[in-house]
Amino acid sequence: MEEVSAPMRARELNIAPGGLKTGPLNAITDVAGVRVGHVTVKQGARIRTGATAILPHGGNPFQDKVPAGLAVFNGFGKMAGATQLIELGEIETPILLTNTLAVGRAIEAINCWTLAQPGNERVASLNAVVGETNDGRLNDIRQPFPTVEQMREAIDSATDGPVMEGAVGAGSGTVAFGRKGGIGTSSRKLGRKQGGYSVGVLVQSNYGGDLRIDGRPLGDAQADVDGSIMMVLATDAPLSDRNLRRLAMRCHGGLARTGAALSNGSGDYAIAFSTAEAVRRTPERRMQASPILDLPNDLLSPLFLAAIEATEEAILNSLLMAEDTEGHDTLKDRPARIEALRLK
Amino acid sequence: MEEVSAPMRARELNIAPGGLKTGPLNAITDVAGVRVGHVTVKQGARIRTGATAILPHGGNPFQDKVPAGLAVFNGFGKMAGATQLIELGEIETPILLTNTLAVGRAIEAINCWTLAQPGNERVASLNAVVGETNDGRLNDIRQPFPTVEQMREAIDSATDGPVMEGAVGAGSGTVAFGRKGGIGTSSRKLGRKQGGYSVGVLVQSNYGGDLRIDGRPLGDAQADVDGSIMMVLATDAPLSDRNLRRLAMRCHGGLARTGAALSNGSGDYAIAFSTAEAVRRTPERRMQASPILDLPNDLLSPLFLAAIEATEEAILNSLLMAEDTEGHDTLKDRPARIEALRLK
Amino acid sequence: MEEVSAPMRARELNIAPGGLKTGPLNAITDVAGVRVGHVTVKQGARIRTGATAILPHGGNPFQDKVPAGLAVFNGFGKMAGATQLIELGEIETPILLTNTLAVGRAIEAINCWTLAQPGNERVASLNAVVGETNDGRLNDIRQPFPTVEQMREAIDSATDGPVMEGAVGAGSGTVAFGRKGGIGTSSRKLGRKQGGYSVGVLVQSNYGGDLRIDGRPLGDAQADVDGSIMMVLATDAPLSDRNLRRLAMRCHGGLARTGAALSNGSGDYAIAFSTAEAVRRTPERRMQASPILDLPNDLLSPLFLAAIEATEEAILNSLLMAEDTEGHDTLKDRPARIEALRLK
Amino acid sequence: MEEVSAPMRARELNIAPGGLKTGPLNAITDVAGVRVGHVTVKQGARIRTGATAILPHGGNPFQDKVPAGLAVFNGFGKMAGATQLIELGEIETPILLTNTLAVGRAIEAINCWTLAQPGNERVASLNAVVGETNDGRLNDIRQPFPTVEQMREAIDSATDGPVMEGAVGAGSGTVAFGRKGGIGTSSRKLGRKQGGYSVGVLVQSNYGGDLRIDGRPLGDAQADVDGSIMMVLATDAPLSDRNLRRLAMRCHGGLARTGAALSNGSGDYAIAFSTAEAVRRTPERRMQASPILDLPNDLLSPLFLAAIEATEEAILNSLLMAEDTEGHDTLKDRPARIEALRLK
Repeated sequence: MEEVSAPMRARELNIAPGGLKTGPLNAITDVAGVRVGHVTVKQGARIRTGATAILPHGGNPFQDKVPAGLAVFNGFGKMAGATQLIELGEIETPILLTNTLAVGRAIEAINCWTLAQPGNERVASLNAVVGETNDGRLNDIRQPFPTVEQMREAIDSATDGPVMEGAVGAGSGTVAFGRKGGIGTSSRKLGRKQGGYSVGVLVQSNYGGDLRIDGRPLGDAQADVDGSIMMVLATDAPLSDRNLRRLAMRCHGGLARTGAALSNGSGDYAIAFSTAEAVRRTPERRMQASPILDLPNDLLSPLFLAAIEATEEAILNSLLMAEDTEGHDTLKDRPARIEALRLK
Repeated sequence: MEEVSAPMRARELNIAPGGLKTGPLNAITDVAGVRVGHVTVKQGARIRTGATAILPHGGNPFQDKVPAGLAVFNGFGKMAGATQLIELGEIETPILLTNTLAVGRAIEAINCWTLAQPGNERVASLNAVVGETNDGRLNDIRQPFPTVEQMREAIDSATDGPVMEGAVGAGSGTVAFGRKGGIGTSSRKLGRKQGGYSVGVLVQSNYGGDLRIDGRPLGDAQADVDGSIMMVLATDAPLSDRNLRRLAMRCHGGLARTGAALSNGSGDYAIAFSTAEAVRRTPERRMQASPILDLPNDLLSPLFLAAIEATEEAILNSLLMAEDTEGHDTLKDRPARIEALRLK
Repeated sequence: MEEVSAPMRARELNIAPGGLKTGPLNAITDVAGVRVGHVTVKQGARIRTGATAILPHGGNPFQDKVPAGLAVFNGFGKMAGATQLIELGEIETPILLTNTLAVGRAIEAINCWTLAQPGNERVASLNAVVGETNDGRLNDIRQPFPTVEQMREAIDSATDGPVMEGAVGAGSGTVAFGRKGGIGTSSRKLGRKQGGYSVGVLVQSNYGGDLRIDGRPLGDAQADVDGSIMMVLATDAPLSDRNLRRLAMRCHGGLARTGAALSNGSGDYAIAFSTAEAVRRTPERRMQASPILDLPNDLLSPLFLAAIEATEEAILNSLLMAEDTEGHDTLKDRPARIEALRLK
Repeated sequence: MEEVSAPMRARELNIAPGGLKTGPLNAITDVAGVRVGHVTVKQGARIRTGATAILPHGGNPFQDKVPAGLAVFNGFGKMAGATQLIELGEIETPILLTNTLAVGRAIEAINCWTLAQPGNERVASLNAVVGETNDGRLNDIRQPFPTVEQMREAIDSATDGPVMEGAVGAGSGTVAFGRKGGIGTSSRKLGRKQGGYSVGVLVQSNYGGDLRIDGRPLGDAQADVDGSIMMVLATDAPLSDRNLRRLAMRCHGGLARTGAALSNGSGDYAIAFSTAEAVRRTPERRMQASPILDLPNDLLSPLFLAAIEATEEAILNSLLMAEDTEGHDTLKDRPARIEALRLK
């Protein structure tokens, strides 16, 4: 495969992993209600970083919590909010993705944003969920960017509709397979007989291995194995937190299919949540025993396949939509340039 | 406290841990539908063992599965069925408790029993749940007892109503705190404002430490720290499998309150399941998305307290209802005698 | 790819996943000391089952325990010994693989074998490790085969050297991707700069999805998604139990690369152990603080890659070395025939 | 028991849980090398908060990492650093304890401190470990205190020697059993035959239940069940990360003995690390396979008992050394006063 110049999504290049259909946008926002916002921080020659916010719905997530599951394949990462997410099986804030050394500021941004929401005037405890990968190969990561305020912008700017991909938001400075990584997204829509549910995935790719494009090894001489990946999955299927964790596990199947090296230093996390109203943890349901809709174990396999496929394609989109990027290599303390992957 | 001769339950001795009320039988069978059966195997001078079966309801548990959770405090044990119980959040067979080297035969007994139930003619896969402690200080545990057939008897004989305690069933040869351990049970019944739910616990005590009777150290010179405990909790509260695991965790709180040494060799497990019809996984509910009643996280604390208290009291009952027992010490290969704990 | 008649290993067909070298036998027995034994049970038209034993070394594993880790990707399985393996980080018996309803008998076989070993005359507690998949599509799995005695044969017959693959032992009746599955094995040998360590994997394949041969989708119309897989990994690298669990996790990466559907019903387990003398838990080391050799986290990535590659190739070998098999479908209660996969 | 005015440690009141001896200071700093620092933040009528830093040794913890384990009994908390601590089995920063909404700033403080250490000039990734409980019953927790700079002070001021207890540092505004909680510490020193190891525990108590003083129910009418506890354990025993997790689990045994309600909202965490030079993860050992001293499973029980006892006593010290405190109740938005527990 030769390389061409314009960024195109995988499907525009006739790369279409798996057999399920995509949603209309082929994005996590195909799951109704989900919002995504980016802040991209480029300053001078050395700062190439940012943050990406994913909101489960357009309301107040602290009041209307969503069931959620976490699947850690390799926990070499600084994810915040993990233990409460697991214990209570829920998310009550926006999810922020950013760089490794910005996690503290991301928590602060989520806390400030949440405390300021109408209805949260007496809130005294909240569990911010933050994921990260290390963009230090293009970003002077020791500098305090993004700031708390910048990350609040990512949350405030979140919208539904198409999602910007590539070197934006939390993907501004990431590197995958030795090429420019970034943010990518994809979705799957099950047929009516399988419930008609949507599954959307958004990734922040910053890992490595021997890249396979829908199975075909690329044989890229520039490839390397370092890095990490954050995967966020949304679905409108009415799933329990246990089954959301199982669904999140399947994101790792999509990751592996891309030829990931699953190396020691790779923090590989997947978070899944359900937007279904019938499982939402509203104030009323949190005060009394209530009927919660539940898709049983035996009907999950089509959703699992959707998670695998959407993850694989979201990763390819993150690479294919990125652009050549110049920045600063923190470890080597020198300028760096990472080229985008172009196929034709 | 001086010792007297007749076995009496803790409450008959005015030992009543905690402030919650018990159910009418002060037994796991206060949770409607739960059945318990024992087989006690005493042969010659050397065999002092048995098995205890706990059935979640009177129907076919493979068809009508119950949500369940597992809490492992110290996994030095041979429990069977753990990974599927966790993954699917359910139990589909009777639970059998027995001795350490009988777990394989217990699985076989559960499999045979389950395959033979009407409606299970085509069943080809089932997850037997078995717990054990090591009764080798009073039982020649290397001998093949209880047999598969004996353990089927434990299942077949299971009934509701009062539960035999002490040196019976899986507690025939166990030792706790250097005294004769065994089977014990207790229950709590929440008030109407807390939902009116019942919590019942049954234990197989075979562990050690520095025994505390409702907090008061006994200062028993014969105490030792070896051994393990299996705890089984039933409730009629409509709980998710995640919250059943959390409830099971609280059994370990009751265990700790008795002065348990929580030693390296102690296999400390708690299994919790819900008998509520509204959470039962019937064939219908396993075929489609269905509303499942769910008691939310915020309302669990009274149940947690019930689990702590009922476990503490079940353990005391297991000791107080046991009787002096003579048998064979497998490790020392010689006759052994363990005295019961008597208080007045 | 057209199909041909003779079973050939993947490498004979120029299918060689990944870039690392294999060991001399391209088998789990390339890890010095590891022994494998099969018992294949074919009776009449309906019994097509068996067992496969993996021994970590030629000595007494109860006395000389090996560190081990377990990675459960989807715990829909009846694996025995999981909780103690995790808690203590070790294996003290042979590992047996067999069918779903034979796990109890497999435990009994391991117990009997272990109690009978010289030096184990006073052993009163041992943790049998058993894995399974469901061969009910070719085997009348409700019948009591393999028996305890047959499974002891698998242990007793274990040897080093080449490993029989395909429809043998625990793979006699398994089905993968709608084709005949079975036992497969492969190995990798790291270069001197990476420590020169060996990694060997043995699988019992019984799962499905959309088969990819070294990345290329096969597009097999007969494929289906049901089933499970057991993966056993051996290495001579001096790893802690924690890092053995991490290594076992990477087997799931190899599994995913084959196009596994990772479906609800698939019990996907990987067990990893180290044969290195310097980490073996000998009686001496179990009695006092002792220096244990430890390969640090930062040096693990080459081993992780070896696990991915060897698993992928072991799975392909399990398919390619199997032969057309006729038996009995338990669920449909009728004769069944599953064809082997042949490529050229 | 009547109440008196002066704060006294439990032993001064002849309350001495368990049978093991304490270290000379009866504090976590009895484990050689451990340093503790507090910052207490009191401003006006509403700010009563702070932070407490625990350093595993006097060097650079990022360069000389220590093996560590985490035991989550109830994960209703915002602990940072959990997943990497578990995956790699180590701590590479100071541990900070603070309030619930200050966790982001605490990460920032640890990051800044670590990046500034000599030798860390190129560090681009680090895993800050932060624990918290909610001091909102005495502190206006929505205000941004402690600040990043204040928390760096806690780290910078850390010293060995006696540890201030009660309403200081991260315990400035906490409440336990309806009385003033805070920081408490205790230690145990094993006899020579048991290895002579030290175990020290420091707690931030902010939870509830029905308080038991060395087993005796206090029957305190003011008691309540809300809150959380963070427990940090240090030992000089040469333990693997797996066994440190197991040791941390036993802190929950000590917690339960105090009558903890283990309620839904209680975030109950224990972190254990080893200061033994022979297990420290130095730059040299992180570059090659190295012998690591390892105390085997079978010798752990005395350490487990030490963890139980030291935790129980540390909790009592946190209560007994606290003083009556006035502040601001965030939930009720009004002034609050919490009395200290005084016994005689």
